[in-house]
Order: sequence, then structure tokens, then C-alpha cells
Amino acid sequence: MNVEILGLIAGALTAIASMPQLIKVIKTKNVEDISWLMLAILISGLSLWVWYGFEQDELPIILSNSFAVIVNVTLLTCYFIFRDKKK
Amino acid sequence: MNVEILGLIAGALTAIASMPQLIKVIKTKNVEDISWLMLAILISGLSLWVWYGFEQDELPIILSNSFAVIVNVTLLTCYFIFRDKKK
Repeated sequence: MNVEILGLIAGALTAIASMPQLIKVIKTKNVEDISWLMLAILISGLSLWVWYGFEQDELPIILSNSFAVIVNVTLLTCYFIFRDKKK
Repeated sequence: MNVEILGLIAGALTAIASMPQLIKVIKTKNVEDISWLMLAILISGLSLWVWYGFEQDELPIILSNSFAVIVNVTLLTCYFIFRDKKK
């Protein structure tokens, strides 16, 4: 099996698995269960993975982690928007 | 910067970010918000990442995704244990 295709399938599956939380937060506007600190740590880690992907020149790593960065930055943005609205 | 160290730091950060959910589920025994289907998709994706890591011979990929598989298999196990206890 082509390793790049393997990585792209792996990335697609982990990307799909991250969507329900985002959809739920956008729908319910409930961010009580979200820790902004953990999101910040996660976004830092994912960004380093993107950097790692560029260093290694591996497209699946770059694509899947860039996507995850976008999802989690959106979650973090939702957190600050919806948290402030509750006050 | 050594690319392997970069990957290990990235993996450590994403691993740390995954712990609060596990700790919360074990402490509260509340698995209402967990979707077993999404966990199954996530575990499949992470397992393919481990496979990808072996194919590419990249230790950071293997280590971080193996750790994530363990965390999420534990979550899935908690889901079935605590869900059945509620019934």
C-alpha cells in the first residue's frame, strides 16, 4: 500500500472524529465542558506537528494537523465568544 | 532543531491535551457526552497512524499515536462499563 495514501486515510479518519465536538459546540453554544488551557496546549502540539510535517516533507502529516489546528482554533474562538455571552 | 525531538515535543503536548477527558470520565463515571462511534473511528484512524509511523520508521509518530490509541481504548472501555452500570 502506498504510504502516502495510508497517511491520508488515517488523517481523514482522525479528522472525521473531531467534527462532532465542533458541531455540538456551535449548535448548543455550550462551552462549559471546554478547557481553554487544554485547547491551547493541543493547538501548540498540533502546530508543532505541522512544522514536523514540513521538516519531514510529509503531506499527510501537514494536511491532517493543519485541519486539526483549524478545528481547534475554531473551538477556542467559540469558547471565548460563547463564554462572554453568558456573563 | 532535531526533527525527532520536535516530533516528540509535539507528541507530548497532544498527549497531555488528551488526558483531562479521560480523567474526567474516570472521576465522574459520566459517559453521556461520549459517542462510541466517533471513538471507534478515532481509534481506527490512530491505529492507521501507528502503521504509517512503522512504514516511515518514525518514532515520534509511532509513540504519540500508540499512546493516543491506549487513551481512547480506555475511554471506549469506560463507556461500555459505565453505560451498562446506569441501566
